[in-house]
Amino acid sequence: MPPSTTAHLAARQARVRQALDALSLDALVVTSATNVRYLTGHAGSAGLLVLTAKTAHLLVDFRYRDAVQMSQQSPGACPDLRTWEVPGSYDEALLGCLAAIGVSAIGFEAAHVTVATHEWWRTAADARRLAVAFRPTTAVVEQARAVKDASEIATLREAARRLDDVVRAAIGAVRAGVRERDVAAAIESALRAAGYERPAFDTIVASGPHSALPHHRAGERMLGSGDLVVLDFGGVLDGYCSDLTRTVAIGPLSPEARGLYAAVYEAQQAAVAAVRPGVETTAVDAAARQVLEARGLGAAFGHGTGHGLGLEIHEEPRITRPRSDLAPVPLVPGMVFTIEPGAYLSGFGGVRIEDDVLVTEDGCEVLTTAPRELQIL
Amino acid sequence: MPPSTTAHLAARQARVRQALDALSLDALVVTSATNVRYLTGHAGSAGLLVLTAKTAHLLVDFRYRDAVQMSQQSPGACPDLRTWEVPGSYDEALLGCLAAIGVSAIGFEAAHVTVATHEWWRTAADARRLAVAFRPTTAVVEQARAVKDASEIATLREAARRLDDVVRAAIGAVRAGVRERDVAAAIESALRAAGYERPAFDTIVASGPHSALPHHRAGERMLGSGDLVVLDFGGVLDGYCSDLTRTVAIGPLSPEARGLYAAVYEAQQAAVAAVRPGVETTAVDAAARQVLEARGLGAAFGHGTGHGLGLEIHEEPRITRPRSDLAPVPLVPGMVFTIEPGAYLSGFGGVRIEDDVLVTEDGCEVLTTAPRELQIL
Repeated sequence: MPPSTTAHLAARQARVRQALDALSLDALVVTSATNVRYLTGHAGSAGLLVLTAKTAHLLVDFRYRDAVQMSQQSPGACPDLRTWEVPGSYDEALLGCLAAIGVSAIGFEAAHVTVATHEWWRTAADARRLAVAFRPTTAVVEQARAVKDASEIATLREAARRLDDVVRAAIGAVRAGVRERDVAAAIESALRAAGYERPAFDTIVASGPHSALPHHRAGERMLGSGDLVVLDFGGVLDGYCSDLTRTVAIGPLSPEARGLYAAVYEAQQAAVAAVRPGVETTAVDAAARQVLEARGLGAAFGHGTGHGLGLEIHEEPRITRPRSDLAPVPLVPGMVFTIEPGAYLSGFGGVRIEDDVLVTEDGCEVLTTAPRELQIL
Repeated sequence: MPPSTTAHLAARQARVRQALDALSLDALVVTSATNVRYLTGHAGSAGLLVLTAKTAHLLVDFRYRDAVQMSQQSPGACPDLRTWEVPGSYDEALLGCLAAIGVSAIGFEAAHVTVATHEWWRTAADARRLAVAFRPTTAVVEQARAVKDASEIATLREAARRLDDVVRAAIGAVRAGVRERDVAAAIESALRAAGYERPAFDTIVASGPHSALPHHRAGERMLGSGDLVVLDFGGVLDGYCSDLTRTVAIGPLSPEARGLYAAVYEAQQAAVAAVRPGVETTAVDAAARQVLEARGLGAAFGHGTGHGLGLEIHEEPRITRPRSDLAPVPLVPGMVFTIEPGAYLSGFGGVRIEDDVLVTEDGCEVLTTAPRELQIL
C-alpha cells in the first residue's frame, strides 16, 4: 500500500492552514504526537510542531535527529520543513522558536495542553517580554483527520483485511480447557505473523460471565462448554489501527444465548445499513439501539455504537447517542469508523460484533470481512 | 508475589490526604488513570477519583460496574470506597458528585487536566452556581508513587527478574541474516512466555547504523557481521513495568566498537555505584556522564541516565543533568529507576546498557540480573 507522500502531507497542512486563517492565527502549536505525525510524518514519541502559513517548524531532540534526516530523503519528506534541535526542555525550545520566527497570535490545542504547561508558557513568555497571545483551539487537526485521504484509506483497508487471518487463528484457539490468556497469546502471535507492527490495544478475550464485562481483558479463566467468548482485537499497520470483535460460542449453547446473539447481530447489521453520506452519527447509533430496545435489551447496551479509526484507535467521528457534550456530525465520504453494538447481561454473558466501515459516495464499504454469523465450536 | 491489599491502598491514600491537608484542600480530583489505579486498585481505562478526607469517590461508567464490584470482594478492595455510576459524560458526573458531597476547595492535577477540560469545569460550575474553587496541584500522587511500598517492590523485583529468560531468548535470536523485526518477535514471544501481560513499550532492536538512533524501534534491516545490536525491552507484570537494555555484537567487531562498549559499560557501573539514599538524582547522572566525557563521548550521550519505573514506564524520579525545569531529588529507599547511559555515533553505531535498581538503606539492589559483559555472537 502507498505510504503518505510529500503531496499527502502538503494537502493535510493546507487544510489546517485554512482553518488557522479562518481563526486569524499566525501559527498553530501542535502538541499531540499523533497530530504531529499526521502533518509531518515524524512518528517519534516526542516532538512539537509549529505550523505557520509557509513553514512546518519541527522541534525534536537529539534522539530523533538522524531519523528525521533520513525521512526527509524519502518520498514521505515533509514539505517546507525546518527542524529545530531541542537541547533540553521542549517548552523552553518552543518559546525560543516562537520568538525567533516572530509570530504573535498563536493557537494551541486546548485538548492536548495541560493546565500546568499552559501556565508555564504564559509565565515564561511574560518573563521574556514576548508579545505573544496563546489562544485555545478545538480539534483543528482532528477534524482534518476524520476524513481520510487516499493513502490513509489504502492503509486502513489493508489493515482491516489482514484481520481475516487473525480471526481464523483466534477461533482455532478457542476450545474448552484453554485459558483466556492463551487465546490472547494466539491472537497476538497471529497479529505479528500478519505483519502488524503491534496490537492496536490490549486484546480482549472475555469468556462465560466475563463476556458480560465489555472491557474485560484476558485472564486466567478456563473456557468451558456453553460459554460465549468475546474476541476483540486489532493491529497497527504503518501507524493505522484496525479493530474487530467476534463473539463465538462453545457448544452446547442455551436458547437465551442464541437469542442474545441474534439480537446483537441484527442491531449491527441495521447500523451498517444506516451508514451513508449526510446521515448523522447519532442516527447510526439509533439504528442499532432501536433493534436492541425493541427486544428489551436497551439497558444491556451501555456503550456507544462505534468510534473513528485512524492513527488512533479512538478518534473522530464518535458514533453515539445524542450527548450534551458531543454534537452529532453528518457522515462524509472518507470517514472510517467501527460499528460495534453489544448486549451484556451481568452474571450471564454478553455478545459484541464489530466491523470497520468506510463511508463511500453512496453508502459504505465494510473493511473487515471475516464471517460474522454465530459459530458454535 | 503479593498484590496490593486494602492495607496498602489505605496507606497510599493516607499519604495523599496528608498532602491535601497541607494544601488546605477538601478534595483532590484524580484524573490520571494511573493515579486512580494506584490509589484504588481500579485499573480501567476510564474512571475518575474524588479523594476526600474520609472517602474515595470512584466515578466509573457502566463498562466497569461489575469489575469494580468483583474487586471490592477481593483482598485488594479499596477502603472507604463509594462508587458513582457515570451515565454519560464524566465531566458532568464529576460536577454532580462535587455538588452532592459538598466540597468547595478542590485540588486538581494540573499536569493531567487539559486547558479544554478545566475551562469546561469552570464554566459549568458557574452555570450551576456551584460554590467551588478548582486549584491546580503538582505531582501530589506522583510524589507518593516515587517511593514504592512492599507490595510494589515485590512486584517490580519479580518483573525485573523474569527478564533473564527474555534476554536469553533475545540473544538466541540474534544472528547474521535475520531481520530486526524477527528478533523483536522473538523477544515479545518470550515476554509472553515469561508471564508478562504485555510489553512495557515498543521493543527496540537497533542494529548496525540503526544502533546510533536511540529510539529506533525494529525494522526490516537484516543483521550482519560487525553489527552492534541494541536490544531494549520490558514487560508489564500485574501493572508494573520492567525495562532492560543489552547491546550485543555479531563478530568480528572493530576495536572502535569494543572501545565504545567499554566506555558505556564503565559509565553504567559508575552510575550504579553512585546510588544510595541522600545522593541527588543529578549526581547519579553525573557519575555516568563524567566517564563518557573523559573519553570524549560527552556529546554522544544525548539523553538522561534513567527514569523511575512503576505503574508507568517513565515516572519519578528522573535521573538527568541539572535542568531548569526539573529540580534534583535526593534518593530515598524504595525508589526504583533505570540506569541506562548510552553513546551514539551517527552512521557508525551505538551502545546502551540498562538495568533497573532499587534504592536500599545503604546503597542499591540491581533488580535486573542478566549478564552485561560484551557478548560477541
